[in-house]
Amino acid sequence: MTMSWQTKAEEKRAKQAELIPDSLKLKNPPGEEVLNVVDFPFDSVLSARDMEITNVEDITTLLSKVASGEWSATEVTRAFCNRALVAHQLVNCLTEIFVEQAMERAADLDAFFAEHGKTVGPLHGLPISLKDQIDVAGQEMTMGYVGWLGNVSKNDAVVAERLLSQGAVIYVRTNVPQALMFGEAVNNLFGKTDNPFNRKLTCGGSSGGEGALVALRGSLLGVGSDVGGSIRIPSAFQGLYGLRPSYNRVPYAGTTNSLEGQEAIFSVLGPMSVTLDGLKIFMKAMADSKPWLSDPLALRLPWSESEYALAEHGGGEKLCFAMMWDDGYVKPHPPYKRAMEKTKKALEAAGHTVVDWVPYQTERGCKIINDVFNADGGEDIDTVCALSGEPRMGWVLDPNAKPMSAFEFWAVARAKQLYIKDHLDHWQATASTTGTGRPVDAILAPAGAGAPQEHNKPQYIYYTGMGNLCDYSASVFPVLKVDPFIDVQEPAHEFRSDPDKMVYDLYSNPEVYRGAPIGLQCIGRKNEEEAVIRMTEIIDAALKNL
Amino acid sequence: MTMSWQTKAEEKRAKQAELIPDSLKLKNPPGEEVLNVVDFPFDSVLSARDMEITNVEDITTLLSKVASGEWSATEVTRAFCNRALVAHQLVNCLTEIFVEQAMERAADLDAFFAEHGKTVGPLHGLPISLKDQIDVAGQEMTMGYVGWLGNVSKNDAVVAERLLSQGAVIYVRTNVPQALMFGEAVNNLFGKTDNPFNRKLTCGGSSGGEGALVALRGSLLGVGSDVGGSIRIPSAFQGLYGLRPSYNRVPYAGTTNSLEGQEAIFSVLGPMSVTLDGLKIFMKAMADSKPWLSDPLALRLPWSESEYALAEHGGGEKLCFAMMWDDGYVKPHPPYKRAMEKTKKALEAAGHTVVDWVPYQTERGCKIINDVFNADGGEDIDTVCALSGEPRMGWVLDPNAKPMSAFEFWAVARAKQLYIKDHLDHWQATASTTGTGRPVDAILAPAGAGAPQEHNKPQYIYYTGMGNLCDYSASVFPVLKVDPFIDVQEPAHEFRSDPDKMVYDLYSNPEVYRGAPIGLQCIGRKNEEEAVIRMTEIIDAALKNL
Repeated sequence: MTMSWQTKAEEKRAKQAELIPDSLKLKNPPGEEVLNVVDFPFDSVLSARDMEITNVEDITTLLSKVASGEWSATEVTRAFCNRALVAHQLVNCLTEIFVEQAMERAADLDAFFAEHGKTVGPLHGLPISLKDQIDVAGQEMTMGYVGWLGNVSKNDAVVAERLLSQGAVIYVRTNVPQALMFGEAVNNLFGKTDNPFNRKLTCGGSSGGEGALVALRGSLLGVGSDVGGSIRIPSAFQGLYGLRPSYNRVPYAGTTNSLEGQEAIFSVLGPMSVTLDGLKIFMKAMADSKPWLSDPLALRLPWSESEYALAEHGGGEKLCFAMMWDDGYVKPHPPYKRAMEKTKKALEAAGHTVVDWVPYQTERGCKIINDVFNADGGEDIDTVCALSGEPRMGWVLDPNAKPMSAFEFWAVARAKQLYIKDHLDHWQATASTTGTGRPVDAILAPAGAGAPQEHNKPQYIYYTGMGNLCDYSASVFPVLKVDPFIDVQEPAHEFRSDPDKMVYDLYSNPEVYRGAPIGLQCIGRKNEEEAVIRMTEIIDAALKNL
Repeated sequence: MTMSWQTKAEEKRAKQAELIPDSLKLKNPPGEEVLNVVDFPFDSVLSARDMEITNVEDITTLLSKVASGEWSATEVTRAFCNRALVAHQLVNCLTEIFVEQAMERAADLDAFFAEHGKTVGPLHGLPISLKDQIDVAGQEMTMGYVGWLGNVSKNDAVVAERLLSQGAVIYVRTNVPQALMFGEAVNNLFGKTDNPFNRKLTCGGSSGGEGALVALRGSLLGVGSDVGGSIRIPSAFQGLYGLRPSYNRVPYAGTTNSLEGQEAIFSVLGPMSVTLDGLKIFMKAMADSKPWLSDPLALRLPWSESEYALAEHGGGEKLCFAMMWDDGYVKPHPPYKRAMEKTKKALEAAGHTVVDWVPYQTERGCKIINDVFNADGGEDIDTVCALSGEPRMGWVLDPNAKPMSAFEFWAVARAKQLYIKDHLDHWQATASTTGTGRPVDAILAPAGAGAPQEHNKPQYIYYTGMGNLCDYSASVFPVLKVDPFIDVQEPAHEFRSDPDKMVYDLYSNPEVYRGAPIGLQCIGRKNEEEAVIRMTEIIDAALKNL
C-alpha cells in the first residue's frame, strides 16, 4: 500500500525532531498564548558561553574574535547550532539540520588556524544558514515538497561552495512556502513558520524560515532568495536587514528552484542579517570569491570600493532620496506611513533631501509579473505536487492560469523589456527635480503594502516586485514596530483596485499587528549593490541619531 | 488592387537608387565576371582627398587627424558617404542611406570644434555604419522585410544615441538576411549582398552587408549583432576584425529584432572593423558612455584597463591558448587547418603556448541552440511574412518546427543553464594542463566550419554558436586567404553527423573559394571583452611578426 503524503510528511518531521538532543529540548515550551518569543529566555536552555556568542554585538565582532583566536570556530558553531535548535522549537523555522557535519567543518577550521596562524578566509568560523533550496552535498533537498523526499544533493550549490571557501560554516536550512512562490513559509512537508515577534503573524516569505531563525539569533546571517520580494518581505517582517542584489550578482548555479529556466525575471540570492554589517560582509566575500569562475550566469563584477564610497552619488554628502508613499495602485498600511515620515525626518536632519517618488504605471508592471510567473499555467507546480498527491498552496501562482505558448511568453518578456526601459527613463528624468544635478540617488519604499499579516492571508507584492521586474538592487532596513494606538486604521479611501481594498480590509483590527516590525526598502538601480549598502548604512545611522 | 510584395520591393530599391548622385554612379560597373571588387579602382570615381581619407592607416589616425583639425568631420563624412555609395553599387550592401542628415551632423561637429576648440567625444567625426536593425529616428526600419515598409523609427536606438553622444556620425545602414536568422545577407526587400573578395561567394551574415561595406572601406567601423555568429561570420568572411561581446555589454534597447523577448540566448551588438584598433575604440567609448543609464538590461561594467592589461592572465607575458582544431561534430574546411597551424606557429614564436582544446559535447549544445531559435514554431517570422505575402527564407529557422509551450521553453532554457555550467567547468579544469597555473587563457577556433561559401548554401554555425550559448566574449581576426592549390580537399573521413558531411561536400571544388578570407576566433569567458581585445592584439602582432 502506498503511503499517503501526510504520513510521509509526518515521518520526515519525526526524523527532524530526533535531531534535537534532549539537552536542548524545551521541557515547557511557551504556550500558544505566548505571542512574542523574541524575548524567550534562551539562557534557560543555553550556556552562558552560548549566550555570549550568539548575542555578539555584530558579525564584524564575531569574525574578529574568531580571527584573533579569542573564540574558536567550534564553540561559535556549537553556540549557533544550539540556539537554532531552540529557535526551531519556538517557530518551526528549520528544514534540514546537519550539526554533525558543521562541527566537523568547524574543527577543520580550528585546525587550519592552529597550524597556519591565519584564517581560511574573511568568513572564517561564521555559521551561515541557508534557505531550503540551496543544495548541500549529501543533504536531502525537498524545498518543502513531500514529493521530493529522498532527493539527496550530489554537490554543493556554488553559493554554498563559495561561502565554505571563504571560511563559513553551514549547519541548517530553513523553511519555505510551497514552490517558493508566495510570501509565507508554509508547505505540506514542514508546515508553517511563525513570526517570532508575534506568533499569530506570518514570518513572510518566501525566505520566511530564514527570517524567523535570524530574528531569534539562531543565525546572524542567512542566505535567502528573491523573485518577487522573498528576501525583503521576511527581512522586513522580522526587523532584519536584507539585500536583493541584481540578477546573477550572487551565484545561483547548483541550487534547486521552481519554474526552472524562467529567465524573464530571475530569482536572486542575497543576505538576510540581524545586524547591518552582514550585507557588506556577505556581498564583498562573495564577489571576492569570483563566482563567475563557477557560475556561467554570474556577472564578472568585483566588489567596488569606489561604488561603495558613492562615487556616482556625490560621495554621499548630500543625497536625494525619493519616497514612494503610495505606488498609486495599493495604499500601504498606516504604520508604513509613520515609518516613512520618521525616515524622511531622520534623513533631513542628517542633511539629505527627500522628495516624493512619482509612481510609474504600477498596474502595467503588476500584470507583467503575474504573466511571467503563471506562463506555464501551473504545470511546474502541478507536476511536483502530483509526485506525492499533496495539494497546491499559495496565492501567487494562479490555479486558473492558462498555459502560454513560447511565443506568447516571449511577448511577455518583451513587454517587460519595454516597461523597464520606461521605468529607468522615468527615474533618470528626475535629475531636474533633485537639486543635486543627479537623478534621485535611491527610492525609499515600503517593504510591502501590508504589515506582517496573520497566517494564510494574501499579500500584494508589487512594492518589492518592482525591483525584481526592473532588476533594481534593493535593501530593507527596520524602522519601527506597529503600535495599534498610534497606527490606527484610516478612513476608507476610494479604492483603485481589488488588491487596494484587500490590503485596506486586512488592517481592520490594528491590534492584530501589535509589535510587528515595519521595514522600508532602499532601492538603487541595477547592480548598485555597493551604493545601496552604503546608503542603507547612512539611513540607518540617521534613524539611530534621530 | 493590392500591390504585390515584389512591386513594393522594386519601388523601395528604385527609391534607394535615386539616393546615389549621378557623380557617383558607375558608368561602367564591373561585369559579373569580375569576382574581386576589393581591388576596384575607387579613384576612378572618388577624389584624391576622398581616397586619402578612406584609405587612412587606421581609425586611431583618423580620429587624431579630426581631433587636431587637420581633417574636418565634414570632409571625412563626405568621403565615407561617397565610398559607401560606390561600394553599394559593387556588392549591394546598403539598406537605408541618409547622407543629408549625416552631413548636417558633421557640420554641427565642425561648428562645435570651431567654437570650443575640442571634440564632442572620443569618436568625434568618425562615420559609423549600422546593421539594418538599429533604429535611427526618422529613418524607415524594415530589417529587410517587405511587410515593414513604412515603419519609421521614432527614436534612436540607445547604441546609436550613445555613438552620437561620443561624437560619431551615422550615415548608412547595411543589409541583413530575412529575420536576421541565417548567415547570409539576403532578403526579399533588398536582395543579396556579395562578398567583395569574390562576388560568387556570400558575405556571410547576419551582419553581412556591414561586413561587405567595411571590407570595401565604405566604413571603417560598423555595428553588427550576433545571436549565433552574426558578427563573427561576416567579419571573418571579409577579412575583418569583429567582437561579439557578452550579453548586454553593448546596449540593445531601442533596436528592432526578430524573436523579440527570447532571452535564453540574447542577441548582442558589437563592432566590426577593418583595422584592429576599432574593437577597443568602440568598446571603450561605449562603456565610457554609461549605457546602463539608458538601457535597463545593460550591465554596469565600466571599461577596465586592468582587465585589458590582462591582470587575470599573468599580464599577458606567457599565455596559454587552446586550439579547437575540430569541434568533434563537424570538421572545418582545409584552409582553417592551415590558418590554425599558422597561428599556433606565430604564437609559439612569440613565447606563448598552444595546447589542444578538447571539445565539450558539441551535439548537445547544437540541439539547445536549435530548440531556442525554433521554440515559437516559426510564428514570429510567419507573422511578419504574412504582412506582405513574401516567402520565408533561410535555413536556421526550421519550417517544420513545432511550437513549444512556455513550460517546454523553460526546460530548454534550463538545459542551457546546465550545459553552460558544464562547459565552464570543463574550461576551468584545464588549469592542470596549461603550465601557467591558470585555465587556458582563451580558446582559438575557426570562425565557422566552412570557408565563405557560394550564395544560397547552408552553414553549420556551432563554431560561433558555442559563444552565444555560453555567453563567451569572442573576437575574430583575419589569418589568410584560401589558396586552392594549397588548401586542397582532404580524403573523406568517417562523418560524425549530417552537417559534417554537408560541410565536407561543400568543399568539393576548392577553386570556388579562391581568395576567400579565413579568420579565427579568440574566445574568452563571459565579459572578458577587454582581455579578449588585448589577446587579439597579441595574436595579430604575432601573426604579423611571423
